[in-house]
Amino acid sequence: MRLLSNDEVEAVLDVKDCIEAMEDAYRELGERRGASGVRSEILTPTARDDGLYSLLTMAGVAPKLGVGAVRINSDILTWPRTSDGSKRVKIPAAPGGRYVGLVLLFSVETGEPLAIYPDGVIQQMRVAATCGLAAQYLARKDARAVGLLGTGWQARGQAAAIAAVRPIERIRCYSPDRARCQAFASEMTERLGIDVVAASAREAIEGADVVMCATSSMHPVLSAEWIKPGMHISSLKRLELDESVAAKADIVVTHVREAASHIVRSAGADLARDTEIEKAALSKDLKQDELPDLADLVLKHTPGRRSESDVTLFLNYTGLGYQFAATGHVLWQRVKDRGIGRELDTDWFTSEVPS
Amino acid sequence: MRLLSNDEVEAVLDVKDCIEAMEDAYRELGERRGASGVRSEILTPTARDDGLYSLLTMAGVAPKLGVGAVRINSDILTWPRTSDGSKRVKIPAAPGGRYVGLVLLFSVETGEPLAIYPDGVIQQMRVAATCGLAAQYLARKDARAVGLLGTGWQARGQAAAIAAVRPIERIRCYSPDRARCQAFASEMTERLGIDVVAASAREAIEGADVVMCATSSMHPVLSAEWIKPGMHISSLKRLELDESVAAKADIVVTHVREAASHIVRSAGADLARDTEIEKAALSKDLKQDELPDLADLVLKHTPGRRSESDVTLFLNYTGLGYQFAATGHVLWQRVKDRGIGRELDTDWFTSEVPS
Repeated sequence: MRLLSNDEVEAVLDVKDCIEAMEDAYRELGERRGASGVRSEILTPTARDDGLYSLLTMAGVAPKLGVGAVRINSDILTWPRTSDGSKRVKIPAAPGGRYVGLVLLFSVETGEPLAIYPDGVIQQMRVAATCGLAAQYLARKDARAVGLLGTGWQARGQAAAIAAVRPIERIRCYSPDRARCQAFASEMTERLGIDVVAASAREAIEGADVVMCATSSMHPVLSAEWIKPGMHISSLKRLELDESVAAKADIVVTHVREAASHIVRSAGADLARDTEIEKAALSKDLKQDELPDLADLVLKHTPGRRSESDVTLFLNYTGLGYQFAATGHVLWQRVKDRGIGRELDTDWFTSEVPS
Repeated sequence: MRLLSNDEVEAVLDVKDCIEAMEDAYRELGERRGASGVRSEILTPTARDDGLYSLLTMAGVAPKLGVGAVRINSDILTWPRTSDGSKRVKIPAAPGGRYVGLVLLFSVETGEPLAIYPDGVIQQMRVAATCGLAAQYLARKDARAVGLLGTGWQARGQAAAIAAVRPIERIRCYSPDRARCQAFASEMTERLGIDVVAASAREAIEGADVVMCATSSMHPVLSAEWIKPGMHISSLKRLELDESVAAKADIVVTHVREAASHIVRSAGADLARDTEIEKAALSKDLKQDELPDLADLVLKHTPGRRSESDVTLFLNYTGLGYQFAATGHVLWQRVKDRGIGRELDTDWFTSEVPS
């Protein structure tokens, strides 16, 4: 049993490998050889009056890749009012001001636990790999310019993913926080070896072949008027899209059509419920359960981009436990024979008695 | 973060404390201050032709008790044909011939992981505590004689639970394996300090005030004809009851009326499906979703036993993630300040980045 840190996960994971594994995994999912479980969230009061406790679990199994994964988040959530409205914010309330998100990886052949690691880096990677895979099918082959809205944790992964699948020469990035935007541009220029420059939202989109939205904004950052023929657009959050963006797209693909989800709220856990219901209604307007999905693309059940002028849109809104099996497989291949991480006795995590 | 073994869990857990915590927990659940998540199972092929891989997760949060729990089972399952029909059997395929079932316990106040431990002993304890709690409301106060059908893992817990809530003087136990039955009787006599003797099924029931069924039988072991006025009966498995038993009972209580459950099977995971559908149909005949449940008993929404001659029946068929929060709370109170278990750095299981 291996215990891995975010740093160790980051050091060995390559987005290209993850995109490849994700392609395999979505093919398996589309043909029902891979399986994704129901996403389960429990919300209850916690010590803070302005917060709730959330226990979230999701799981998936990819037999071809030899692994099953369970992701667990144990969070203190708040919904502070901002000028944007009300925003869901995780509070790092664990000792040392830390967050609690874990992935447990299991062997499909023996059932044994293979590894436990935090979900921070791998969460960025699974979102990035999913968008990278979609871009491989939907973005123009000669895409060179990227407009990136958002410069946070997810935006890093997005930039790396698109650079891995297309001959990207420059990225224009935008964030309302100018200093953060500049810092992101410098860091990513060095990391990716391509030109990353800070810009306004509008400038970022102008002339872009690929537009990636990776913000935490509660109101639209991408206006339909800015969209030009041939663009590929991806989005991680419904609220960041102007409602008319989807109408401009010739092809809209969601990462998964059906994702079973179950939420239980205990008494007293109604905080921010209205905001969420509102948001859920907003998400439904895109009718994601009727759209082709990533498995359809990989299996060629849907054609993907048909011409240089098609506008394509990829929606990557609901996390799947299954994606943690795909990325977990890549991670395990990288670390298992290389002595990376803390080796703990597997017997501590297994049992002589059945249950 | 504390890592605990089955032996450590067994050494500190007392069934009386667990029944008390369970009573508190069911009161919380009945008033919706506690919450139980959906049970999620994923079934896929594994290396064995005669087996499947199963990844099962369930979770629950008891804010009053300060904890949330996630239980994970990662199993290789087979359905060998026996003279009884087809039976679900877990294969200890992890290194050293071991099983994989884990409970992760989290703090509702900080989100931090408090402990990880195997689910073997605690699983027995949560089943036992649930039956003990039910007996407290349903068995006659002066119950002295117990008939115990089954002498396996769960039967141990059942014997301890009933002895904790009623002035039991003797237990007659039955198993088709005579040697095992004798060994069980000797061990439990010593452990509980009361007379435990091996008997036939019929002898075990005769004169019993409480009848506890804890078998893995695929056909009825308890016949309706043996039931006498005043008996309290509990069952852990639908198939062990003759179908007419419920009709003989004046009061039937299920441990939980509504338990959300979600199963995904990948392609090629249809093994033993028919057997399960058959069993599910058989379970539905008791209309558990219309019965009063344990929370109703604790909250006095249903009266429980009304007279010395009432026959009462308690059905304890579906595991709840929430029960692992209740027992996890007791466990944590016992070990946290006593240096029991392996102390691991909590930082290894938490993260500096959100996800």
